[in-house]
Amino acid sequence: MLTDVLINGEKKHNLDITDRGLQYGDGLFETIEVTSGRAVFISRHLDRLQLGCKQLFIPYPGDTVLLSEIDLLLEGIESAVLKIQLTRGQGGRGYRQPEIIEPTRILSLYPFPAFPECYKQEGVRVRLCSGRLSSNPSLAGIKHTNRLEQVLARAEWASESIQEGLMFDQQGYLVEGTMSNVFMVKDGMLLTPLLVNCGVAGIIRGIILDYGAENGFHVEPQLLTKEHLYRADEVFLTNSIIGIWPVSHIDNYSLSVGAVTRQISQCVDQLKTQDIQS
Amino acid sequence: MLTDVLINGEKKHNLDITDRGLQYGDGLFETIEVTSGRAVFISRHLDRLQLGCKQLFIPYPGDTVLLSEIDLLLEGIESAVLKIQLTRGQGGRGYRQPEIIEPTRILSLYPFPAFPECYKQEGVRVRLCSGRLSSNPSLAGIKHTNRLEQVLARAEWASESIQEGLMFDQQGYLVEGTMSNVFMVKDGMLLTPLLVNCGVAGIIRGIILDYGAENGFHVEPQLLTKEHLYRADEVFLTNSIIGIWPVSHIDNYSLSVGAVTRQISQCVDQLKTQDIQS
Repeated sequence: MLTDVLINGEKKHNLDITDRGLQYGDGLFETIEVTSGRAVFISRHLDRLQLGCKQLFIPYPGDTVLLSEIDLLLEGIESAVLKIQLTRGQGGRGYRQPEIIEPTRILSLYPFPAFPECYKQEGVRVRLCSGRLSSNPSLAGIKHTNRLEQVLARAEWASESIQEGLMFDQQGYLVEGTMSNVFMVKDGMLLTPLLVNCGVAGIIRGIILDYGAENGFHVEPQLLTKEHLYRADEVFLTNSIIGIWPVSHIDNYSLSVGAVTRQISQCVDQLKTQDIQS
Repeated sequence: MLTDVLINGEKKHNLDITDRGLQYGDGLFETIEVTSGRAVFISRHLDRLQLGCKQLFIPYPGDTVLLSEIDLLLEGIESAVLKIQLTRGQGGRGYRQPEIIEPTRILSLYPFPAFPECYKQEGVRVRLCSGRLSSNPSLAGIKHTNRLEQVLARAEWASESIQEGLMFDQQGYLVEGTMSNVFMVKDGMLLTPLLVNCGVAGIIRGIILDYGAENGFHVEPQLLTKEHLYRADEVFLTNSIIGIWPVSHIDNYSLSVGAVTRQISQCVDQLKTQDIQS
């Protein structure tokens, strides 16, 4: 499955088991679309990675190093998924971090998944997960590698006809999908959950928040519940690999794929094209 | 620092970066004292590992495989720290686990830390961490490898004179130390936090809960707050490597090392000797 890997700039795919990424999930990652040989929205991904580094006290390696390693890895590659993983490296004593942190950079390429075109056109089926997300403001928003909650939630179903599971926090508020952010449209308004206590602030979500207003849809992240989902006119999912998937069913409840979702999808596609050509 | 490693029975110390242990912290671990060439309280450690496997849907490799690999690794070793790490292995699609899970077993040896004798005799200084533990009953009790909260809490202080930090949950209830469980003695009663929403149910903690009653100290895990700590006659910490450390100071508040702590410490030492000789 794996086509190529660079660890700290070196072509290899093995890591010493004392790396804190393996020992404690002590690190961060980014999952990035590669199209036309370009890492899409790379500056946003690196910004989020840098923010995560700040939050976890991991020294950020710098855009220059990462971008040159990405260039090296993408030579001759048209389409792929690029994963950047950054760990706190080796050393320290137990949970205690080493005095000098030398992060491990792992850049790896995976084949871009072949999603059926109908996911984008007709929408996908989602379910509601029973596993809840825990709250911790100091880990909220960033894409860290402590992902057991998502792994357990994704293990709740095996059916290939269900593409995503929506997750709630311990108080019952809607947060996100196991691998995506969620939006809903109600009376022309765009709603998405607040991610102050848990959840990953996705790149496509950020783009919609930033560009929504100038394209006619103002979004205000807020506390949302299951009831909001069932009262919504449209529901859609976002992430960097899927882009935007309209939701056609929440369990057996059906929704139509609406005009606002299509419009936002086109808007994101345009921004993507601009980003690739820039 | 690392003296020896077995990965799935093979002498090597590198792991493929696609292992889910590295990708998502998708696994479990045990940290075990090796004294007189024996892995102390090994059956309890393997029981907890098995319980963790059940909770995370990771197939348990079985005592036989693990014990024979431990024997191999401990050949000629008198004293060490043995770490057993078990990951969900490779494969799957994103958070989705593979249909057939082939766990990765990583057994590694580290030098046993040389703690000053005064920690055990005169007690240690602890502080109260500001970082809170998040609540998730499906991950509580087990020793999984999603340990960013502990890493961040341990990064709150650098002073060598402070040996541990106590952690509270989001509601303000006392849970544990960053690497230890906590007990307190009040009017001859033994108190320790309930670990139903977060925390690791430590091996030494389990021994005290199991053997306390027949040795004259009944322990009832319960909801405890910071106020309980300051009203306690004695406070002590437990883990498999430190054994029992009395607490002499909580920040600037001082405590005396009491008779109950000494008695329990002796009791655990006796059980350890029995376990080694069995």
